[in-house]
Amino acid sequence: MHIVKKYITNKAMSLLNVNSSAKQASNEIIESVQNMAGQINNSQKHINGVVPIKTECYNTLLRYGWTREKPLEVLSRKGGPIDVYKEFFDNTASFRVGIEFETGNISSAHRAMNKLFLGILHNDLDLGILILPVAKLTYYLTDRISNYEELEPYFCLAKNYPLIFIGFDAESYSPNHPILKKGTDGMSLK
Amino acid sequence: MHIVKKYITNKAMSLLNVNSSAKQASNEIIESVQNMAGQINNSQKHINGVVPIKTECYNTLLRYGWTREKPLEVLSRKGGPIDVYKEFFDNTASFRVGIEFETGNISSAHRAMNKLFLGILHNDLDLGILILPVAKLTYYLTDRISNYEELEPYFCLAKNYPLIFIGFDAESYSPNHPILKKGTDGMSLK
Repeated sequence: MHIVKKYITNKAMSLLNVNSSAKQASNEIIESVQNMAGQINNSQKHINGVVPIKTECYNTLLRYGWTREKPLEVLSRKGGPIDVYKEFFDNTASFRVGIEFETGNISSAHRAMNKLFLGILHNDLDLGILILPVAKLTYYLTDRISNYEELEPYFCLAKNYPLIFIGFDAESYSPNHPILKKGTDGMSLK
Repeated sequence: MHIVKKYITNKAMSLLNVNSSAKQASNEIIESVQNMAGQINNSQKHINGVVPIKTECYNTLLRYGWTREKPLEVLSRKGGPIDVYKEFFDNTASFRVGIEFETGNISSAHRAMNKLFLGILHNDLDLGILILPVAKLTYYLTDRISNYEELEPYFCLAKNYPLIFIGFDAESYSPNHPILKKGTDGMSLK
């Protein structure tokens, strides 16, 4: 895949400019998104599952030492963990980054964004990243999966948080590309 | 029903203290919540629909001159309207209040809250109200309906907005109370 849209809040930009851990996190995430196979079957709408795409991204992140499902202290008994997490060290300074890779509906994208806000507000995270497919791509993914453009009017809510929104698209579309297998829960069979 | 939990941000509290329109809006909303029939059948979990409850609240609000489904300028082509809306006038000063009465799952509650944030941030609203059932009540409502306590860890995200969260509960529970009819969409048949 390749990154075609990006929104970086001022607070995140300041970190990227001065903090080597933030820069390293960003580089690892960009590489992980780019490592996802970018050939999408476009023989009909909603034909591809999104889990195989996400899995490839996670596998690259795991090789870089990221971990899955980091619980937030503030949500210890209520609500789910952060999708992917890594604590970086620059000399002795710790820098904690959380990623939500959103593959649910638009409501679910709101929850993912708010979870990153909450982690930052409660000092569980120093930087949050939300990764979403762009609208053009979701046309060929499981029905109702949210896209970058759909959430975009709400990016302004992130203005006081160090947050980066990443929108990715396929490298090529063809009816001859393999169809990506769907999961078995929720909307994925529709 | 009666209001058993309430969270008022500092910005909302300031408005309630000095602005007669804010105070009037709050009174009309409290009365509308209290006007909802508060007898809940507790013969088994998830047995009642939530639509009849919400409808009663809306009917009282409509009698007070509130209107349904106010589109936000900022979301003109993307995303839904605000559930209920009223513009108050104190002398010549306009004061616009938006209500979201949340009866979806927890993700949907996040979207409703963010929609109120967005309306305030873009100067479409001067005050936002989010109304939810409390956990005790949702045990007897359609499965997966979100509750006040579930969203509560996220109320801190509202600190820079004039926002009021209202949690309501039944007045009495009995297996002999009538069962409230369910809708036919989404989780409501489960």
